[in-house]
Amino acid sequence: MPDHTPGLHLIVDLFGASHLDDMTTLDSALRGAAAAAGATVLADHLHHFGEGHGVTGVLVLAESHISIHTWPETGYAAVDIFLCGRSDAHKAADHLRAVLRPERVVITEIARGQG
Amino acid sequence: MPDHTPGLHLIVDLFGASHLDDMTTLDSALRGAAAAAGATVLADHLHHFGEGHGVTGVLVLAESHISIHTWPETGYAAVDIFLCGRSDAHKAADHLRAVLRPERVVITEIARGQG
Repeated sequence: MPDHTPGLHLIVDLFGASHLDDMTTLDSALRGAAAAAGATVLADHLHHFGEGHGVTGVLVLAESHISIHTWPETGYAAVDIFLCGRSDAHKAADHLRAVLRPERVVITEIARGQG
Repeated sequence: MPDHTPGLHLIVDLFGASHLDDMTTLDSALRGAAAAAGATVLADHLHHFGEGHGVTGVLVLAESHISIHTWPETGYAAVDIFLCGRSDAHKAADHLRAVLRPERVVITEIARGQG
């Protein structure tokens, strides 16, 4: 069993959020979140499911990953911020909140790998 | 607020698992997990942090994502299986367990987007 915590995983649910069908804003928001946290982007992939539909975006990081899946029709976005090492997951969450301006946010913290 | 659940997110922690520094096996395991769940792969990205170190792998799916981050030095792997629609996240988890043969598994179910 590991004697350390590999990482902090924030499960972030955004309700009443904006820009959820806007690839450019979402890409910028994810990269800004990684930068705010002090994380290093290894790869990214965004996919738009078509006009009026949602976007899936994933940043693969040296410190794990940040992902977003959006439902613009309801204003809901499911965000995961899983960061290891010294990067600060809450700063990434703060950045996404500032850009996507949800009416309500629910954040659940999970310490991964504690056993 | 959405009147439906966008997806089931399984937080899967594997302890005492095998093949955690083996890119080929992990890539195959992730794709097999997606297939077992009935999910469609849009993109994948795997990164090996070097000899004796871990692997990060993410499958971007039409139904959300599957990710794995491994620590071969402790036998720990952090898996996320976030699937929307009719795909079956538990079948994906079963597939990964069969391939990676952990001594112990902890699965937490999170229904995303319920409000």
